Amino acid sequence: MSLNSFGRVLRITTWGESHGRAIGAVVDGCPPGLSLSEEDIQPWLDQRRPGASRHTTQRRESDHVRIVSGTFEGRTTGTPISLIIDNEDQRSKDYSDIAQVYRPGHADYTYDAKYGFRDWRGGGRSSARETAARVAAGAVARLVIPEVRISAYLVELGGDAIDRDAFDSAVIAANPFHCPDAAAAQRWERKLDETRKAGSSLGAVVECFAEGVPPGWGAPVYAKLDAELAAAMMSINAAKGVEIGDGFAAARLRGEENADAMRAGPTFLSNHAGGILGGISTGQPVIVRVAFKPTSSILNPVETIDRDGNETEIVTKGRHDPCVGIRGAPVVEAMMALVLADQKLLHRAQCG
Amino acid sequence: MSLNSFGRVLRITTWGESHGRAIGAVVDGCPPGLSLSEEDIQPWLDQRRPGASRHTTQRRESDHVRIVSGTFEGRTTGTPISLIIDNEDQRSKDYSDIAQVYRPGHADYTYDAKYGFRDWRGGGRSSARETAARVAAGAVARLVIPEVRISAYLVELGGDAIDRDAFDSAVIAANPFHCPDAAAAQRWERKLDETRKAGSSLGAVVECFAEGVPPGWGAPVYAKLDAELAAAMMSINAAKGVEIGDGFAAARLRGEENADAMRAGPTFLSNHAGGILGGISTGQPVIVRVAFKPTSSILNPVETIDRDGNETEIVTKGRHDPCVGIRGAPVVEAMMALVLADQKLLHRAQCG
Amino acid sequence: MSLNSFGRVLRITTWGESHGRAIGAVVDGCPPGLSLSEEDIQPWLDQRRPGASRHTTQRRESDHVRIVSGTFEGRTTGTPISLIIDNEDQRSKDYSDIAQVYRPGHADYTYDAKYGFRDWRGGGRSSARETAARVAAGAVARLVIPEVRISAYLVELGGDAIDRDAFDSAVIAANPFHCPDAAAAQRWERKLDETRKAGSSLGAVVECFAEGVPPGWGAPVYAKLDAELAAAMMSINAAKGVEIGDGFAAARLRGEENADAMRAGPTFLSNHAGGILGGISTGQPVIVRVAFKPTSSILNPVETIDRDGNETEIVTKGRHDPCVGIRGAPVVEAMMALVLADQKLLHRAQCG
Amino acid sequence: MSLNSFGRVLRITTWGESHGRAIGAVVDGCPPGLSLSEEDIQPWLDQRRPGASRHTTQRRESDHVRIVSGTFEGRTTGTPISLIIDNEDQRSKDYSDIAQVYRPGHADYTYDAKYGFRDWRGGGRSSARETAARVAAGAVARLVIPEVRISAYLVELGGDAIDRDAFDSAVIAANPFHCPDAAAAQRWERKLDETRKAGSSLGAVVECFAEGVPPGWGAPVYAKLDAELAAAMMSINAAKGVEIGDGFAAARLRGEENADAMRAGPTFLSNHAGGILGGISTGQPVIVRVAFKPTSSILNPVETIDRDGNETEIVTKGRHDPCVGIRGAPVVEAMMALVLADQKLLHRAQCG
Repeated sequence: MSLNSFGRVLRITTWGESHGRAIGAVVDGCPPGLSLSEEDIQPWLDQRRPGASRHTTQRRESDHVRIVSGTFEGRTTGTPISLIIDNEDQRSKDYSDIAQVYRPGHADYTYDAKYGFRDWRGGGRSSARETAARVAAGAVARLVIPEVRISAYLVELGGDAIDRDAFDSAVIAANPFHCPDAAAAQRWERKLDETRKAGSSLGAVVECFAEGVPPGWGAPVYAKLDAELAAAMMSINAAKGVEIGDGFAAARLRGEENADAMRAGPTFLSNHAGGILGGISTGQPVIVRVAFKPTSSILNPVETIDRDGNETEIVTKGRHDPCVGIRGAPVVEAMMALVLADQKLLHRAQCG
Repeated sequence: MSLNSFGRVLRITTWGESHGRAIGAVVDGCPPGLSLSEEDIQPWLDQRRPGASRHTTQRRESDHVRIVSGTFEGRTTGTPISLIIDNEDQRSKDYSDIAQVYRPGHADYTYDAKYGFRDWRGGGRSSARETAARVAAGAVARLVIPEVRISAYLVELGGDAIDRDAFDSAVIAANPFHCPDAAAAQRWERKLDETRKAGSSLGAVVECFAEGVPPGWGAPVYAKLDAELAAAMMSINAAKGVEIGDGFAAARLRGEENADAMRAGPTFLSNHAGGILGGISTGQPVIVRVAFKPTSSILNPVETIDRDGNETEIVTKGRHDPCVGIRGAPVVEAMMALVLADQKLLHRAQCG
Repeated sequence: MSLNSFGRVLRITTWGESHGRAIGAVVDGCPPGLSLSEEDIQPWLDQRRPGASRHTTQRRESDHVRIVSGTFEGRTTGTPISLIIDNEDQRSKDYSDIAQVYRPGHADYTYDAKYGFRDWRGGGRSSARETAARVAAGAVARLVIPEVRISAYLVELGGDAIDRDAFDSAVIAANPFHCPDAAAAQRWERKLDETRKAGSSLGAVVECFAEGVPPGWGAPVYAKLDAELAAAMMSINAAKGVEIGDGFAAARLRGEENADAMRAGPTFLSNHAGGILGGISTGQPVIVRVAFKPTSSILNPVETIDRDGNETEIVTKGRHDPCVGIRGAPVVEAMMALVLADQKLLHRAQCG
Repeated sequence: MSLNSFGRVLRITTWGESHGRAIGAVVDGCPPGLSLSEEDIQPWLDQRRPGASRHTTQRRESDHVRIVSGTFEGRTTGTPISLIIDNEDQRSKDYSDIAQVYRPGHADYTYDAKYGFRDWRGGGRSSARETAARVAAGAVARLVIPEVRISAYLVELGGDAIDRDAFDSAVIAANPFHCPDAAAAQRWERKLDETRKAGSSLGAVVECFAEGVPPGWGAPVYAKLDAELAAAMMSINAAKGVEIGDGFAAARLRGEENADAMRAGPTFLSNHAGGILGGISTGQPVIVRVAFKPTSSILNPVETIDRDGNETEIVTKGRHDPCVGIRGAPVVEAMMALVLADQKLLHRAQCG
C-alpha cells in the first residue's frame, strides 16, 4: 500500500516531520552508473529553501542534503539511495499554543480524527516541509531523463494572471515568484507585500512544461501518464486542482477546436492535449497546471474549536509563506521529473 | 506495477477492448459476506449504457453483466469477483477505413508509437468502453460503503454552466444530461442537437458529491484521498482536469476567505476544501469536479497523417457520443465509490 | 495489496472457484508484438489436465482456454490478456455431505475462520483448480523468455527418490509421473496403485530446472530471484517446502564444499547455489525443489469436527489425485516461467 | 516494484551498504498510538550484533539505533518511522585486495553482471549487514502483534541436529548458538572452534515458532501466509531453503499420517501443517525452518576469476562469521514478526 511511497519502477519513500530530527527520502529502482553527488541535488533544494526572500517563510533551514547510501565512487549502484536533510531551526514553541486548537485549512483536525492524536509541532508530517524530500528525490530522477527539460513557473498569483504574450522564460529566475512575465512579477510583489501586512495570504497557479519527452511514455489504463501526474501534483500540500493541457478550458471548446491536427513529421499544429493522448505521451511538450490554495496559516483570526470541542478563535503566528504556491513551483518540477523518469523505465520494461 | 489495476486494498483489474469478445473487471480484496447479485450491478451499467437517448452513441449494447466468481449463495466470499460483459454490437467495419489513419485527439498515434501497432477496431483498449468495467466494479464498491451517498451530475456543458441557485437533485435523473438545473437541461438539449447536426462535439464538467464520508479516510502523503481521487478521475477517457472543493477558484481566494471555520459539533461553516484536509476526509461532503474535453470523433474533417506519415484529412463516422461527459457522470460516480471503499478498508487496516 | 495477483512488471491476477462457472487469469504488462494464440497455451493446460491417467483425479475437464482480450491479429498488443477456462464437470453434490464438516489438511476450517463462511463446493477458491489459470498465464510468460528452457519433474514420490545417475530427460514425458528415472517410474506406479486402493495418498518432491537464464536477473533485497521463486512455489496448493540449489543439504556442507569455484568464461565448476547468488542469477541453470504434502482428501477416515464444533469423522469421497505433486509439476514450471519473465522485464526496466 | 521494500500494509523499505555511512529502515503503515522508543528496538539489535562471542564476526558495531521520525511523545503517530543505524567500524581496506576478484558464493559476480560495477567494500548492499535494518523494523512489528510470541533457534549446525527430546527453551539464550539443546550446544562449540581454526565455515538450520497467532491470518492465493513467509525467509542472506511445518518430511508421509485431526475446541491432535492451511493460519503455532548455507567467506583458498576474467585463487580474510546461521536466528524472528504484523493488518482491512 505504501502510504508514503510514490512511483512504480523508480520509487521514492519519504519520511520525517516538520520539527523532528530530520526528513528524508529513499529512492529505489534507480538505474546504475549515473553520476551522482550531493552537488547534483543541492541546487534544487536551494530553489525551494525557505527564507530566500521576504515573500517566503522566515524559517531558516540550510536544507543541506546528505547521500548516505546507493552511490559508490560517485555513481549510482542500482541500490537504494538514502537522502537525509537535517532539521535545524525547529522553533516548536511557536506552535505550543496551538497544540490544543485546530487551525482551519490545516490537517490538524483530520489527523486527530484519523489517528487519535497528532504531532502538533509545525504540522508534523502534514507540513510542506515534506516536499524538500521530494525535491531531493526529484534531482535524482532528473538524471534518469537527461533528454527532458522541465520548467515550472507561476502563471497566476492571487487571481492576477500573467500576460501570455509577455512570457519570457529568462525572467523566471530573475524574480522571487518564478514568474515568466516581468510586469506581472512587479504587480505581484506589491500585492504580496500588502497581503502579508494585512495578515492574509494568496493562492497561485503553477504551470509545468516538460520538453523532450518522446512519444510512448505512459500506459493504459490506470498507469496513464496524466493520471500519474494528477496524483503526483494533487499530493503536494495545498494543491486543489490539476489540469493537463487546456484542462478545464478544453471543456468549453468544440471538437474541431480542441483537435490537435497532425502534419508530416509528425508534427502537431497545436497542443490542446498537453502532450498526452490516451494516457501516453505524444512527443509534444507535457503541460500541467496546479492550483494552490492560499496559505491556511494567517494572522487574521478565524473561528475554530479546540480538541475538547470548545469554540474559540485562532491567529496563526509561526513563520509562514504568504503564498505557498511560490515555493510550490520547485516541488511541481520535482514531481514531474519523478513521474517522467518512472514512466521512462516502465516503458522500457514492457516495450524494451 | 499493475498497469490495468487500481486501488490498494479493494483493487480492481480491468481488461478488454472495444471490439473484442468481452470486457471485464476482477475485484479483489472485497470484504466477505456482502449480499451481491447481478441485479445489484446492472442498474448502474444501465445508467452508463450507450444508446439510451439521441444524445449518446447509437451503438447498441445490452451491457449485461455476469458474476462468474467470488460469490456463494448470494454473498461475497472474500475471493476475487470476476465480472464479465460481452461485447455484442461490434461493427468493426465502421473502423476499417481509419485503420491506417490517426484520429487527432485519440490514442491512435500514441498507441502505435508505444507498442508498434494497435488494435484499431473502435480504439481497442483506449476506448471508453473500458469504463463499463469500472461501473460494474464500482457497484461492488458501493456495497462496501453503505454509509456514503454518491451523486455525479453535469454542471457545465459546452461552456454553459448551471445556475447553482436552481440546483435540484430531483432533476438529475429526469433529463438525459444528468443535469441538476431544469432550465439548463433544456438549453443543453438544443445546444447538443445543433452541435451533433453540425458534425461537432462539446465538452463538459462533471461534479461528484459524496455525503456520509466520516472523518479520517485517506492517508499521508502519497495515499492522500485527494491524490487518489485525482488519479482515479484523470484516468477516465477524455478527462483533462480535476478539482477538489473550490479547486482552481481557491487559488483566487484570500486566506481568510478560503478557511472553513469550525464550530462545535464539529461543524464547518463552509466547505471550500471539498471535504478533504491534509489528504484526509473532514466529515464534510467530498466534492470533486472533472473536466471532459469534447469528443474527438467528429464528422468535421481534421488534418492528420496516416501510419506511413502521409498527410491526409479525417472524418470520423462511427457511432459516437456528441458529448462524452454525459456518459462520464456514472463513471465518475464509480471511481468515487472505488476510491472511498478502498480508503475505508485502508483506514481500517491501519487504525482498526 | 493484490491478494490474487502475482508479479511486478508481468503481473497476473487469477480468479475463480473449483465449482463456479469458470476460472481465469488476467496477464498484465506483457510486451507487445508477441505471437500468441490459444494453441500456444492449450498444450500446457493439457499437461496439467485432470483425468489423463488413473493416477490423477477422474474429474473430466477439457480445460479449453479462450483468449478474450489483449491480442490483435495474432499478436499481443501490450494490453491485458484475459484468459478464461470454463468449468464443465462440476459435480458439486459430491461435496454436499461435507458442507458442514471440516476436512483436515484442507482450507475448510481456515476459510470459515477468516471469512465467516465458505464456498464448500470442491474447496471453492482454495481448490488446486486455480492452478490451471497459472498454467495458462505461464504459457504467456514463456513467450517473454524464449531464451529459457524450463523442465519440472518429480524426484521423489512417497519418499522413494530417483537415482540421479539414471536421470534421463527423455523419460519425463514417457510416464504419467513426470519421472526422469524409468525404473523409479515403474516402482511409483505400483506404489501409487496400492496407495489409491488403500484409500490413502502420497507426497512428492518436484524439481524445476531452468536453462538459459542470463546473469543479472533478480534484484536486491526483497525482489531477490530466490525470494520471488520461494513465494511463487509456496503459493501452490499443498506445497510445504522450497529449496534453491542444494537447499537444506547446503546447510550440511562446509564452506569450501559449497563454494562454486569459477574459471575463465566465466564458468562454474559446480552449482550448489542453484544458479542464484545474492538474489541475482549467475548464468548457471536455476534449480528449485518443491515439497508437496500428500493429498488431504483421502478415503481413510480422519477425526474432525463440524461447523458447530461437534466431533465427527470424515471420509472424503469426491474425485481426487492420490498424489497432488504429479499435477504439481506443470504448475511449478508455470510459476518458474512467470517469475523469470517478470524478472527479465524488471531487469530491463532498471538496467536497460 | 519496490525492490527494497517488503510487506503490504505494514511495509518496510531498507537502505544502506556494509561500509557506507549508515543503514536504515523506513516502516510505513504502522498503527498509531503504540508506545515506541529506542529502548524497544535496541535489545533485538543487540541479539544480532556482531562480536558478541568468538563464534561471530569480530567486526565491532554498537548498532545503536535512532528513531528519527514517526513518533511523538513516545508513541507512534501513524506516519513513517525512520530508523537509522550508523556504521562505525568500516575497515574497508580489508576488502581492497578483493575489489577486483569475485568471491565464490558471494554476490560479487552477479552484482557486476547486473549493474556493470559494484560497491566492493564488504559486499556493499549484498552484505548481511542489511539485516540489522530488518531486525530494527521487526522490533516495531512486534508491537503490532502483542498477542504473538516468537522464538527462533538453531536445530542443526553443520549437519549436527538437536535432540528434540532435549528441547529446552530456557537454554536458547544461555549459549551463543541460540541452541535449545544444552548437549548439542556443547558439541557445536567444539565443532565451530575447530572449523574456524581450519579456515572453513558451517551451515545451519534455524527454526522459528510463533505462538498466539489466531486463526484467519493470511489470504488466498498469492498473499498466502506461507508464501509470504517463504519470500521473507528466502530474502535473508545465505538462506537456501524454507519449510513450513513438516516441510520436506511431509512429502514422505501418507495422507492419514499428515492429516492434523481436529477435536472440539477446536483443537488439533498434531501440527504437521505448521499452523497454516490454504495459506491461512489455523490458530496452531506457526512453524518455519530456514536452511542457511555455510559462510562463503573462508580462509581456505577457492578457485575464482578476477573482473578481467583471469583465473586466480581467493582467500577471504576480513572478519567473518564462521556460521552465518547463528546470527540468522534474530533475523528470522524479525521477518516472522514483519509478516505476521502485516497479515494481521491485512486481515483487519478486508474482514474488519
